[in-house]
Amino acid sequence: MYGYGTDKKDLQDRLRRIEGQIRGLQRMVDQDQYCIDILTQVNSATAALRAVGLRLLDDHVRHCVKDSIERGGGDEKVEELLAAVARFAGR
Amino acid sequence: MYGYGTDKKDLQDRLRRIEGQIRGLQRMVDQDQYCIDILTQVNSATAALRAVGLRLLDDHVRHCVKDSIERGGGDEKVEELLAAVARFAGR
Amino acid sequence: MYGYGTDKKDLQDRLRRIEGQIRGLQRMVDQDQYCIDILTQVNSATAALRAVGLRLLDDHVRHCVKDSIERGGGDEKVEELLAAVARFAGR
Amino acid sequence: MYGYGTDKKDLQDRLRRIEGQIRGLQRMVDQDQYCIDILTQVNSATAALRAVGLRLLDDHVRHCVKDSIERGGGDEKVEELLAAVARFAGR
Repeated sequence: MYGYGTDKKDLQDRLRRIEGQIRGLQRMVDQDQYCIDILTQVNSATAALRAVGLRLLDDHVRHCVKDSIERGGGDEKVEELLAAVARFAGR
Repeated sequence: MYGYGTDKKDLQDRLRRIEGQIRGLQRMVDQDQYCIDILTQVNSATAALRAVGLRLLDDHVRHCVKDSIERGGGDEKVEELLAAVARFAGR
Repeated sequence: MYGYGTDKKDLQDRLRRIEGQIRGLQRMVDQDQYCIDILTQVNSATAALRAVGLRLLDDHVRHCVKDSIERGGGDEKVEELLAAVARFAGR
Repeated sequence: MYGYGTDKKDLQDRLRRIEGQIRGLQRMVDQDQYCIDILTQVNSATAALRAVGLRLLDDHVRHCVKDSIERGGGDEKVEELLAAVARFAGR
């Protein structure tokens, strides 16, 4: 059972909104809207995606990592988490 | 006429691929896939969106900003560009 | 006792190198060097600082967070960690 | 003559403050302060360095790039600027 299970609906809602933003971007390009306005919308979709990423990290630490450590293991989970944080933080 | 006009097809292709990635994410959540795998996919979609942002900035500088400066103006465009770079770079 | 204790020398070495980079930047500005070259050096110092941040997060998870969870607590540490990751990742 | 010339004093003041923050970090590590507090200070120094980077980009566009375009050239400057923005924005 996965950490994000309980928040599945929230994650799906966020992803659907982001899908709508991406389709909105396609319309803006199609209508030759001003590039700075499109860029603003790109930044907004990027921020929404990063919020999904943080939410996933959050669920992961609260459930998978915590459970593994409580069961006496968790070293592998801790390694995996740190690698994921490094990639997420962009280096 | 807008700076990204000539690259409209490339931009649309990128946006369609990103839309596909977002729908892929919805499937991964639906199938209870492992959070770290979903996070990897989120990072990949975020990188693709940021590449679209850079492409828009690129077109904007090469066309709108350059044209305005050549026509003897451009101060407003330069301000707008710098504000957009600051937001894009995340502060 | 703190998580970064064992790596104190490594952290101090990194911070001293970054201090040297910052002083190098002051010299570059003083000598009117080319802004793009200075910016390259700024990016390099920023990357070095972020590597220190990741190292601190790493030690923190491996020691403080893991210990707290093993002692049956850890919820507060998990909250604190997630807030720190969010700030570090830039939102 | 360089774009940041007029703001040299402001840049030097910022860099000196950042140098002070880095030395403060060395003291915090030396005194075994709590890793999350040190990380907060790392984030603050990183933000200050990025503000210096933005300031350099700003001066560069307002002076070097604008001047080159006005003199009928500027393509090379525009390329260089876009590469710098891409590195600064972290990809």
